[in-house]
Amino acid sequence: MSAVHRLTLGDVLAEHRRGRPQGTAVVDGDVRLTYPELDERVDRLVGALAGDGVAPGDRVLWLGRNSFRVLELLLACARLGAIFCPANWRQSADEIAYVLDDLTPRVVVWEESEAVEKARGQVVPDARWIRAGEEYETYLTSGNTAFSGIMDDDAPVLALYTAAFDGRPNAALLSHSALVAHSMALLHMRQMEDGFTFLACGPLFHVGTMMFTLATFQIGGKLVFTPAYEPDEVCRLIDAEKCTQAFLFGPMIDGLVQANRDGRYDLGSLRFVSHSPEWDAMITVDDSPWCASGMGGYGQTEVGGMLTFLGLGMGGEGFAGRPSPLVHVQILDPDGREVPPGEVGEICARGHSLFSGYWNRPELNAEKSAFGWHHTGDLGRREDDGTITFVGPKLRMIKSAHENIYPAEVERALKTHPAVADAAVIGVPDDRFGQSPKAIVVLAEGAEATSEQIIEHVRGEIASYKKPREVVFVAEIPKRGYTPDYDALDAAHGGGAYPGA
Amino acid sequence: MSAVHRLTLGDVLAEHRRGRPQGTAVVDGDVRLTYPELDERVDRLVGALAGDGVAPGDRVLWLGRNSFRVLELLLACARLGAIFCPANWRQSADEIAYVLDDLTPRVVVWEESEAVEKARGQVVPDARWIRAGEEYETYLTSGNTAFSGIMDDDAPVLALYTAAFDGRPNAALLSHSALVAHSMALLHMRQMEDGFTFLACGPLFHVGTMMFTLATFQIGGKLVFTPAYEPDEVCRLIDAEKCTQAFLFGPMIDGLVQANRDGRYDLGSLRFVSHSPEWDAMITVDDSPWCASGMGGYGQTEVGGMLTFLGLGMGGEGFAGRPSPLVHVQILDPDGREVPPGEVGEICARGHSLFSGYWNRPELNAEKSAFGWHHTGDLGRREDDGTITFVGPKLRMIKSAHENIYPAEVERALKTHPAVADAAVIGVPDDRFGQSPKAIVVLAEGAEATSEQIIEHVRGEIASYKKPREVVFVAEIPKRGYTPDYDALDAAHGGGAYPGA
Repeated sequence: MSAVHRLTLGDVLAEHRRGRPQGTAVVDGDVRLTYPELDERVDRLVGALAGDGVAPGDRVLWLGRNSFRVLELLLACARLGAIFCPANWRQSADEIAYVLDDLTPRVVVWEESEAVEKARGQVVPDARWIRAGEEYETYLTSGNTAFSGIMDDDAPVLALYTAAFDGRPNAALLSHSALVAHSMALLHMRQMEDGFTFLACGPLFHVGTMMFTLATFQIGGKLVFTPAYEPDEVCRLIDAEKCTQAFLFGPMIDGLVQANRDGRYDLGSLRFVSHSPEWDAMITVDDSPWCASGMGGYGQTEVGGMLTFLGLGMGGEGFAGRPSPLVHVQILDPDGREVPPGEVGEICARGHSLFSGYWNRPELNAEKSAFGWHHTGDLGRREDDGTITFVGPKLRMIKSAHENIYPAEVERALKTHPAVADAAVIGVPDDRFGQSPKAIVVLAEGAEATSEQIIEHVRGEIASYKKPREVVFVAEIPKRGYTPDYDALDAAHGGGAYPGA
Repeated sequence: MSAVHRLTLGDVLAEHRRGRPQGTAVVDGDVRLTYPELDERVDRLVGALAGDGVAPGDRVLWLGRNSFRVLELLLACARLGAIFCPANWRQSADEIAYVLDDLTPRVVVWEESEAVEKARGQVVPDARWIRAGEEYETYLTSGNTAFSGIMDDDAPVLALYTAAFDGRPNAALLSHSALVAHSMALLHMRQMEDGFTFLACGPLFHVGTMMFTLATFQIGGKLVFTPAYEPDEVCRLIDAEKCTQAFLFGPMIDGLVQANRDGRYDLGSLRFVSHSPEWDAMITVDDSPWCASGMGGYGQTEVGGMLTFLGLGMGGEGFAGRPSPLVHVQILDPDGREVPPGEVGEICARGHSLFSGYWNRPELNAEKSAFGWHHTGDLGRREDDGTITFVGPKLRMIKSAHENIYPAEVERALKTHPAVADAAVIGVPDDRFGQSPKAIVVLAEGAEATSEQIIEHVRGEIASYKKPREVVFVAEIPKRGYTPDYDALDAAHGGGAYPGA
């Protein structure tokens, strides 16, 4: 990467300082900053962090609610070559202690919280702790250490903790280049134009809110922060700041409709997805590919947010659409060979928006980038029209004879039987085939079906070798979050002999 | 660049082969190719070129009119790591000979032309010559050399000859990454969505047509090629292929309105810029930032096409708007220091879409990338609102005492005088200041003005030290293309003592 081609997040801020001298960058409660003001505060923060010895590759942690300080800290780390992590503040003391221990930050900026204080007592990392209010402002004014480095834009700048792959959360590292690339794709699909204003009312430690925050920053728009989703306050902010978009999903939208029943707030500036007649009458229904497709697609933190967009395959067979223009996708089998269209394999990807691995997980990183492709850990399929279907998490694969069977695929087939309310599939040891699939089924209220009928149904849906050899009927399937608790199912129903386990 | 982050133009084609198995990639006369068909032909071409010894970094030259073969050759070079150049076929034999000599291509694909044949006789490069028709098809079938390499996406893949900076044309080298980045910016600003169809009716050796060809390819759209702009055929193709956009400017649009007076063709699929009531009634006036801003901005081949977009600064002071989200701009003085807003300096840039220098011009490349910034060779200004104004080509700077004076800026000031029809500024030797500016002025028909009045007018427009010391009135200013012939003016009016000359 030559200097001429470089574009760090710090460079983007430097451009907006010049290009938007009167432009509002940030609104958060009483705080309002223009781009030049943000740029100056970030530079002071850079000086303060450098004075604390924060060097390229060092971590800076945020433990608090949504705040403009998240953006300031990210941009200061960007200029220093450090890595910024906004972590989930609502976790238990043990979970926060895990993050402190795993990430070993040099500086922690935090908001008052019992769990954080307890975690701080549990782990004693060699970190400087700064409270988010006055102490943070004083810290900023201490920034007199001159720092001027040229940063590599392929270096990681943001760390976001993601779901456990190997039993513990991992911090996905995203580089300047990856974040800028993802922002470009979102700018395109969401048609984010000059003057875009985003209300960050979802959690900033989650990629869904972070990706829109970053895309809005990329285009020099206005970012409105609010500590958390509170319907009346969200309505007030949309009206007062003329927000173009907010981080909203179904039940959150219903909350806004409820809060604005009396039409007190003008939400007409919001350009968003159609939801209900009341909602559609309050806002401007947007026709960008992102909104028209109902925000459809497939994504994960490790790809910067979205990997595919339904807006690139509306009306197609696969409901995940097609890959973003800056990535490409192949559906691979466990040996790194591409599977033909219509067959299920792991969704694998390459491209500009992909992450740089997890912090401090060399073995997992090697596994996730096998054969030079990022392995998402999710199963999918190319349909005959080239669009992609997300099948489900890969979790544990079953190997029967030489065939690979993914529980998620068999579960989907089971659930298309009208009598089946819920289903999970495990692998059980099999003398002849090594392993064979076994279905754990919850019947729908009042419905009846035999094991044979259910097995026959699956045989009609997918390849015969994938059908369960046995079906067990249960009243309820134990869950971990939204997915079956496979460990509990294995223990209860004789699962085992998984390859690689 | 790790394998996981790579995205070459060859990778984009590989994705479209999977993602758009039934999608039409190319239409050109009787030729219609789906993405899988294009992919297969490109692979055969890769084999044939590899069989001819074309290796990474080698050049392949196209000498002909617009053709789908331009895309095929570009993509084959992309997979080989070679550099493809579509050159201007209408040049004189001497000019074509210059290109052959400068680029030393290993393979030349050409269409019958007297000038090309003459040039081929003048220079005898060690190249394989292939005629564009049947010979090219036979060549494709000869492609049985297996080739499988992993290409670096920072390597140059496209060479486009640009205007002379040092008295001769230079081939600007653009990498995969630069082209992909520029396409993303265009996809965003032009709102090029799924199903976009582009009619390449401008010359493919020019970045204006090439940039839309590449952005359409990036999104997996349909490319319609026609040998050259012919109004009736352009109308027919828009109707038959339901083109979303074509390469069109003012007089070309008038030609289409004329050709379609009787409304024979349905041009409603075309989403374009408003132009005249007749035109607006024939097409769909598009409201994307690119079209709504009248395709405004500032660009050059060396930045992949557009560096700034008026669509990012509509209503602002500077008519070039603001930089594309993937670049940043500074206005620098000759010593690499940024000049303050309102002052004129050279438009300099960094970012993802920038070129990789000129082919075979090490000294010019060092000059153009001084201080780690690409120097566009054009003058501009940041306005108070942060938008950018393009002032004019830098060409030759005048140095008076220690001040830098750019003729383009003084010329703009001169032309705001109502009596001035045309003006050019040269530097003349000055005993006291080393050099001083002298204005060559053409008065408007019937207008009168004294030297003193004109000098006084300029003093009111720009800094006093930039005003001409002398004004000479002439009937006409000699031109080279659109710009004054400064060599002729120097010779006629005593120019000289330029710094660095």
